[in-house]
Amino acid sequence: MNKKAIVLLSGGLDSSTTLYDAISKGYECHCLIFDYGQKHKKEILQAKAVARKAACPYFLVKIGLPWKGSALLDNKISVPKQRALNTTEIPVTYVPARNIIFLSFAASHAEAIGAKTIFIGANAVDYSGYPDCRPEFIRAYQAMLSQGLKSSVEGGGKKIKVVTPLIRLSKAQIVKLAVKLKVPLALTWSCYNGGNKPCGVCDSCRLRAQGFAQAKFQDKSL
Amino acid sequence: MNKKAIVLLSGGLDSSTTLYDAISKGYECHCLIFDYGQKHKKEILQAKAVARKAACPYFLVKIGLPWKGSALLDNKISVPKQRALNTTEIPVTYVPARNIIFLSFAASHAEAIGAKTIFIGANAVDYSGYPDCRPEFIRAYQAMLSQGLKSSVEGGGKKIKVVTPLIRLSKAQIVKLAVKLKVPLALTWSCYNGGNKPCGVCDSCRLRAQGFAQAKFQDKSL
Repeated sequence: MNKKAIVLLSGGLDSSTTLYDAISKGYECHCLIFDYGQKHKKEILQAKAVARKAACPYFLVKIGLPWKGSALLDNKISVPKQRALNTTEIPVTYVPARNIIFLSFAASHAEAIGAKTIFIGANAVDYSGYPDCRPEFIRAYQAMLSQGLKSSVEGGGKKIKVVTPLIRLSKAQIVKLAVKLKVPLALTWSCYNGGNKPCGVCDSCRLRAQGFAQAKFQDKSL
Repeated sequence: MNKKAIVLLSGGLDSSTTLYDAISKGYECHCLIFDYGQKHKKEILQAKAVARKAACPYFLVKIGLPWKGSALLDNKISVPKQRALNTTEIPVTYVPARNIIFLSFAASHAEAIGAKTIFIGANAVDYSGYPDCRPEFIRAYQAMLSQGLKSSVEGGGKKIKVVTPLIRLSKAQIVKLAVKLKVPLALTWSCYNGGNKPCGVCDSCRLRAQGFAQAKFQDKSL
């Protein structure tokens, strides 16, 4: 069986746990790390550190989105502090079509190296409400790949599959899984702000803190 | 009605005709031009020239795909000469997930500037058999966008639409439409090889020549 896989790696808790999950299942993982103009460049350094720790090859893809429209890209839009997390509103940290773009590169890379699996750490439980993290989106993306790729159309069943091991897990369950899989949690970076220490007040910091608290583990990255 | 549109512009016959078609329908067109590491860099210059001629703003998106796997990217793979065009085989000029990637950037750009329409010159009649040029793919892509974008999920009907004015036209019909719309055909560039003059033997040159011949127009780019 072809066990070559592409893993989208941002350097955060979820994508790093996804990488270790894929490794634990015997996949030969090739990581894709993106520089998309995010303010929090630190996550790129941490993603590289996680890939190196896992002894997996990685590519850094520089996209340089020439437009703005997100608090993660635009210095004029602040990352919200202490935003209510139990709303259905999509926050200003939403980056237009981010996972759509990331998965597209993963699909291209997968075809180029003959990988049949793409891992993405999308999560639809303790998340910020981004539409491109929901199972409905992943299913539609999968259906689109089945129509758009040479390897799907010609493949006769050898389709490229998008796998989301975390999609139905709570943040606490993700932390527990990360600990079990020996993810180097101290290397991971979740904060949306680009400082030396996590800000503690953005959605991403707070979802992470909530997960560690509920799982009763100490976050050694702090 | 919102008439802002993103137009994917490669500088070839099809995408340039698509741009002029969108303009003729009253759209305010914003062009996206890609440097994806293609050998035929000349198409980028020609795409810019076409956008300028049409007085439309454009963004050049530099992707720099770090993998190969296509005759358009890899110097070690030759662009086929005089390949049979009436086969169902997908040729080595196929670039893994190219239109999937291009449309993803278009979707991101559309959301960032509030455009509701994406134009792509995909054609499934006189084409090279690329899976990501077929109506089935476009429909699946559209369905995926409806699940993955903030503007689709929140929009209440204000979804971003992918429009393919050429998809059912023959190359001869495209040439006739281009002439009718006064597309600056002499500026367009279709050849897969990077020379000063079109090679005349790649799929793209031959499909173009066939279209001009059948439409009984002279190709002034030659």
